[in-house]
Amino acid sequence: MPAHHPVWSLHPQLDADAVTLGDLPLSRVLLVNDANYPWLLLVPRRANAREIIDLGEPDQARLMREIAGTSRALKAATTCDKLNVAAIGNLVPQLHVHIIARRHADPAWPRPVWGAVPRSTYEAAALEPLVAALRRAIWPASA
Amino acid sequence: MPAHHPVWSLHPQLDADAVTLGDLPLSRVLLVNDANYPWLLLVPRRANAREIIDLGEPDQARLMREIAGTSRALKAATTCDKLNVAAIGNLVPQLHVHIIARRHADPAWPRPVWGAVPRSTYEAAALEPLVAALRRAIWPASA
Repeated sequence: MPAHHPVWSLHPQLDADAVTLGDLPLSRVLLVNDANYPWLLLVPRRANAREIIDLGEPDQARLMREIAGTSRALKAATTCDKLNVAAIGNLVPQLHVHIIARRHADPAWPRPVWGAVPRSTYEAAALEPLVAALRRAIWPASA
Repeated sequence: MPAHHPVWSLHPQLDADAVTLGDLPLSRVLLVNDANYPWLLLVPRRANAREIIDLGEPDQARLMREIAGTSRALKAATTCDKLNVAAIGNLVPQLHVHIIARRHADPAWPRPVWGAVPRSTYEAAALEPLVAALRRAIWPASA
């Protein structure tokens, strides 16, 4: 393996907090296991990237297209009033972009979700159809 | 003025909270008047845009280039440990992207900044050189 191209792997904290939906050209797409809000993560598969500006310009452009595509899919698959899009990463250093479907009736509104209320894990009966609906919305060609 | 191209103007709440640094091809660049963190806003000059996906694809690409450029400039002009980049907009409906220079020693670390601690307005003696340094970093050709 060339030293300049180290292997990417999903950060264990992200893996623990979320369900993998699949891969886009740049990013792995995850659903955070928090039933308070439909909440996706885009994780660019680039080793050692911590900031958006750690990506090369073509990957930055890919990331924006993937943010827009998954935002539209999330909006189509859920009922939401506002999208929240953010790259924070103060706790988990691997670059990841939050895309969150917010509702006026959700438990944190209008605050940002981080630290607002305790996580509420999905019941399997709710998680499975949501995962299926999100996969169909994000990868319509494979539906 | 054609009805399909309404006039953009800065939302009064953003105008009240921040100092204008200048315009990039798409976005107005503001410095939030909060001395707790060097905190920029990019506000795309497109009327009625509330979400990133309300922008056309060329504007989305411009926005990513402006996010990357101002992120690099903010990092160069300040001492920071992490950048936080976010489009939230739950309170102010006009699309705006936060670009915040975070330090391990700042009063909210590692929490996101929104609602974490009361704002601390800059003293004029601190604001003026920061504004000048940020303008030089963001628009180097005009320095």
